[in-house]
Amino acid sequence: MKSLSCFGFFSPTFFRCLSVTVGVTTLVACGHVGVRGTGDLGIIIERASGRVQIVEHSGATRLASVSGLGDLSHASVVISRDARFAYVFGRDGGLTKVDLLLQKIDKRIVQAGNSIGGAISQDGRLIAAQNYQPGGVKIFDAASLELLADIPTSFGSEGKRSKVVGLADAPGQRFVWSCFDSGEIWVVDLSDPRHPQVRTFKQVGREPYDGLVTPDGRYYLAGLFGEDGMAMLDLWHLDRGVRKILPDYSKGEEKLPVYKMPHLRGWAIAGRYAYVPAIGRHEVLIVDTESWQEVGRVAVAGQPVFVMARPDGKQIWVNFAFPDNGQVNVIDVESRQVIKTLTPGKAILHMEFTPRGEAVWISARDDHRVMVIATDDFTTRQVLQADSPSGIFFTSRAARIGF
Amino acid sequence: MKSLSCFGFFSPTFFRCLSVTVGVTTLVACGHVGVRGTGDLGIIIERASGRVQIVEHSGATRLASVSGLGDLSHASVVISRDARFAYVFGRDGGLTKVDLLLQKIDKRIVQAGNSIGGAISQDGRLIAAQNYQPGGVKIFDAASLELLADIPTSFGSEGKRSKVVGLADAPGQRFVWSCFDSGEIWVVDLSDPRHPQVRTFKQVGREPYDGLVTPDGRYYLAGLFGEDGMAMLDLWHLDRGVRKILPDYSKGEEKLPVYKMPHLRGWAIAGRYAYVPAIGRHEVLIVDTESWQEVGRVAVAGQPVFVMARPDGKQIWVNFAFPDNGQVNVIDVESRQVIKTLTPGKAILHMEFTPRGEAVWISARDDHRVMVIATDDFTTRQVLQADSPSGIFFTSRAARIGF
Repeated sequence: MKSLSCFGFFSPTFFRCLSVTVGVTTLVACGHVGVRGTGDLGIIIERASGRVQIVEHSGATRLASVSGLGDLSHASVVISRDARFAYVFGRDGGLTKVDLLLQKIDKRIVQAGNSIGGAISQDGRLIAAQNYQPGGVKIFDAASLELLADIPTSFGSEGKRSKVVGLADAPGQRFVWSCFDSGEIWVVDLSDPRHPQVRTFKQVGREPYDGLVTPDGRYYLAGLFGEDGMAMLDLWHLDRGVRKILPDYSKGEEKLPVYKMPHLRGWAIAGRYAYVPAIGRHEVLIVDTESWQEVGRVAVAGQPVFVMARPDGKQIWVNFAFPDNGQVNVIDVESRQVIKTLTPGKAILHMEFTPRGEAVWISARDDHRVMVIATDDFTTRQVLQADSPSGIFFTSRAARIGF
Repeated sequence: MKSLSCFGFFSPTFFRCLSVTVGVTTLVACGHVGVRGTGDLGIIIERASGRVQIVEHSGATRLASVSGLGDLSHASVVISRDARFAYVFGRDGGLTKVDLLLQKIDKRIVQAGNSIGGAISQDGRLIAAQNYQPGGVKIFDAASLELLADIPTSFGSEGKRSKVVGLADAPGQRFVWSCFDSGEIWVVDLSDPRHPQVRTFKQVGREPYDGLVTPDGRYYLAGLFGEDGMAMLDLWHLDRGVRKILPDYSKGEEKLPVYKMPHLRGWAIAGRYAYVPAIGRHEVLIVDTESWQEVGRVAVAGQPVFVMARPDGKQIWVNFAFPDNGQVNVIDVESRQVIKTLTPGKAILHMEFTPRGEAVWISARDDHRVMVIATDDFTTRQVLQADSPSGIFFTSRAARIGF
């Protein structure tokens, strides 16, 4: 037993941190707050107040709040490989690394003027941020947030840069994204992070607005706003180029005004079939992922925003754009019918399933609450208060390709 | 700032725990050891010494050893919902809850005379142990290891109890297992843990030896040892009963002597196709999961033991029974060919992929080491020493159905 000196902070609510000096080494040890598993943690974005809640989904409780994250009006989150840190991408170009255990900001940078999200690499060592202004992607060290590479999405001869959308990670230490203005898809190999190897696919379609990598990491799909359909790239066979799928889904019919762009990243693959939001239509399209042909449609309550599969693929949950954003439809995969319509609150913005799917967390922005709903009997098991909640992100995303 | 008393333990190697008394409350806080994310942790079974190693796969290092787990000669592991605890099922009926953060045994019971593994419920609150002697399944509270239900697998009129194999969790807070001696499949609903609702399917085939739930939680499959084929149950439609698939895969040919039974739980579904070990044959069967018909075979180096898909489904890795247990075959899913044969060491017992699949950890029992191999170029990235290593289990299993 050696001598040691000890210094503690004590707050009225709970014990937090201890700093201990043993010889020349200072160690910081934390009780209550710091020692716990991180497999059941999550983040709720409080969009109006630049704040996030840290929650856990075993008991469905709130653990802490962390403030000072800037403009979170369209924030998204990726999770570190060890499930300790959440990287929050703010609309204002802020990238904030939140420590879920010590319940504080670990690091924060403002890396662009206008940003729309990001991704984490296959090995967890790189963070990529997709930016509108200036258009491009920046690559950061996940530990230090040091800038490793800056990849402007230049196009044309006038020095323009495209807004970047639909950024996702892919196997082989790659990132894939779409360029809204130039109609391109870029595949970038970051095996050597300071020397990105870029491959560009041009004329993939007009105005890609979002994209995703399929759960198996094989296909990249970009939704198109400027025309019907999606652009698809087989990441196992880049030489085959980009293929257009679902080219005529609104053929001969007039689109409705689009109040909110759908989000694709959380999309739904249940078995062999993908469930895709139709832009400007009250429909979810069912696509065969072998032929990439449309094989059916499901009429839903409004213009779909998120179309998400319960982890076991038995149900598809759908929320909607204004004015139908107080409803949630549940589609039964086997019958391809809406089997339940829920009205969990005002302005439903996001849904997140627990890892094995027994519950879903749903944010109701204008009711300032998050509901935890059982997916078998649709009962509400828990209600958590939150200030204008939007995105909900559980740490189980750390282990999933494309998240 | 209130007064507090502080007491620390210091070991020559690293700082461990601090006990702090604030008023009447004593809090234990741990530095280095305790405060870290648990998303990248894992367990390596050291089968001959009743010991496990705690490892992390971000840097591929060993963190600690924990001893006193009894007979680990056929041990398996499930992970708690929060990814803090590993439940280790020993061959001697021991069930040990290991704290991966405090690096010690949290609780340990001996719950049967001869046990073969276990599972964790969808909500993470129940642990099920499958026992040979006495035959049956016991249900425990995951936090306290209190016994909640004891389900003997009785059959016939002489009071016999069947050995239980192939236990897996399924959506709807259910467990499913097979009975080796009676040739049955049992589906048990534990929504009320003290009052299990059992449904029994008889005459499913001779001597089921292992089973699994498909990654989407829909189908339960039991491999048969006493005859060709597998028994399949659609968990969405129990009333349709058990169906026999692959009934004649060794038709007209003599089986080789079987040195080691294949393991099914880690089996491989890549896209629409399942890759299944053929018993007593140097083949992997390819099965269409829509028709459940065999659609192809791949000749491999020996009798397959584990047939596992890389998380992105692009490769299938296979290890073998004696005398071919020094080899590993890698099957390319697209071409259905063996594209690589590795000889990573003597007596290859298990393989575990990192969550997004860039690496695989392989245990070589008789070389007393675990190799970390990159799945793109097959280079060995790291070698860890271990005493007769067998199973390797990462915490990412916590979020996966059927694990």
